[in-house]
Amino acid sequence: MAPSRTIWFDAEQLRAAVDMGAVVDRVREALIGLHEGEFEIPLRFAPGDGNFLVMPVRHIASETLAVKSLSANFTGRQPALSGTLTWEEWHTERHVGADAAEATAMRTGAVSGVAADLLAAPDARDLTVIGAGGQAPDQIRAVLAVRPISSVTVAALTRESAEECIARVDGEFPDVRFIASADPRAAVAGADIVCCVTPSTERLFTLGDLKPGAHVNLIGSYRPEMREMSGADIARTALFVDDVEAVTAEAGEIIEAVEAGELEPGDLRTLGSALAAGDEAHDPGRISVFKSVGVAVQDWALMCALVDTVDTGGSD
Amino acid sequence: MAPSRTIWFDAEQLRAAVDMGAVVDRVREALIGLHEGEFEIPLRFAPGDGNFLVMPVRHIASETLAVKSLSANFTGRQPALSGTLTWEEWHTERHVGADAAEATAMRTGAVSGVAADLLAAPDARDLTVIGAGGQAPDQIRAVLAVRPISSVTVAALTRESAEECIARVDGEFPDVRFIASADPRAAVAGADIVCCVTPSTERLFTLGDLKPGAHVNLIGSYRPEMREMSGADIARTALFVDDVEAVTAEAGEIIEAVEAGELEPGDLRTLGSALAAGDEAHDPGRISVFKSVGVAVQDWALMCALVDTVDTGGSD
Repeated sequence: MAPSRTIWFDAEQLRAAVDMGAVVDRVREALIGLHEGEFEIPLRFAPGDGNFLVMPVRHIASETLAVKSLSANFTGRQPALSGTLTWEEWHTERHVGADAAEATAMRTGAVSGVAADLLAAPDARDLTVIGAGGQAPDQIRAVLAVRPISSVTVAALTRESAEECIARVDGEFPDVRFIASADPRAAVAGADIVCCVTPSTERLFTLGDLKPGAHVNLIGSYRPEMREMSGADIARTALFVDDVEAVTAEAGEIIEAVEAGELEPGDLRTLGSALAAGDEAHDPGRISVFKSVGVAVQDWALMCALVDTVDTGGSD
Repeated sequence: MAPSRTIWFDAEQLRAAVDMGAVVDRVREALIGLHEGEFEIPLRFAPGDGNFLVMPVRHIASETLAVKSLSANFTGRQPALSGTLTWEEWHTERHVGADAAEATAMRTGAVSGVAADLLAAPDARDLTVIGAGGQAPDQIRAVLAVRPISSVTVAALTRESAEECIARVDGEFPDVRFIASADPRAAVAGADIVCCVTPSTERLFTLGDLKPGAHVNLIGSYRPEMREMSGADIARTALFVDDVEAVTAEAGEIIEAVEAGELEPGDLRTLGSALAAGDEAHDPGRISVFKSVGVAVQDWALMCALVDTVDTGGSD
């Protein structure tokens, strides 16, 4: 029995190996592929009533499989989501694994980069991120990978937590000005792009607080009671989602808008379909919103970007 | 976000870390636990019509999860089964991963050790292994972990392949005599314990070829057309299986015996139930057979043994 080749990346190694721009590109391709039926995505397992999650996704043409296995513990353990993301190739005996918490943060950032790249002003300079938790730094990295951002405002419940978040990323972007804020409504006022990564159950700002033509990524909500904008507000924007079925079941903004009769689930357009059609672009007169709850193909795409680095000798 | 702790073992590291005797002990406990309802075992995923397999198993009391993800390619790729075996703990943020091909060989050996320990003569000296493929060395290691074996015969289609198999293990057991054979029927004649790990579709020997009181492990068959003993022969032994539903669907020996009316599936006894009851032991006058197709709790048990080494500082 020939030994099989194993390549494992812990959180730091994963971070060092993969360039965020490459992840954005791979996630873009995967969202188009999702729209075009290129994946087999079995139902997720949730053993122990959701104490664990097992999420496989198979890319049919390349005959590759990504499986994310998580333990989900919200009793105070850090990180609450911990686990592994593994990669199998049918054509070879190689397999690759990576830290799932780090991978999830990176691919969740990347999808915001994809949306901003399609929908935000090409010359966008000002980014505001609301929320200073584990997902915030990769929102910054991903948007900076696709737009010439010169100023980043991080708004959090306290200025101190915003400053802590900034301290984790500012060294990577010496030419960018970082501003800490404890006032989300004020922080979005001049922003070309807004990324929300909070567990909020109340809207963080209104449409009127935003600049005309701003693009907003809503990443935080994943339960019906959670929302970062109001349902009425998102219904008045150029609205895109990652997965119609998932956001209709899980995203508080969408559920609120549908229940109020302001949105029909059948009218929801996926980011993948817009990317595939190639007919969508920044509209300076209209605010655009992308609502994501996360889809398994993002994990597959992150592993693709990682495997690319292995194939080419990589930057690690 | 605190970084989560990742511990990854490639094939060599896994082999070096875990003692086969410890795996035998953990597999024994897991088979008892399986009998006593201690596990949640979702249906296995088989994406790509079985090109991939994803097999999760959760141990309820410890709130731990093992997930084996494999690519299965029988077109000549070596190894045909390749992948990862990961371990998640709900109470901690730690996760552990290991090479699945190596892990599978070890846990498949270990279950033969468990069966031999329960059913073979306490003073068994002679072991015969039929089959010289990737599973054979761990059959030897596991039986030698539980019985004072002094002579091991490996029987294969050619003496050369038997010798190659022996060369892979004999250095680990300097006090044991190893014999290569190309005649399976002759090789079982004096054996106290026989382990069969072949893809045979014909019986390899008859009951009359065996010594009275011999114990046989049948590991090879996993499809209806495969068999290493005849259905009529196994029906006349003290017969144990790993999982009634699985062997009734997959094991050629069992299917043949059931179809011929020589066995009722309801009469099949699991090794776990015998271990739990504690009422089974070697009977010098009767041949015993253990038929295994493999159960997911063996993977969980292997990872338990591996995690034990991490917890104690280990031998790695």
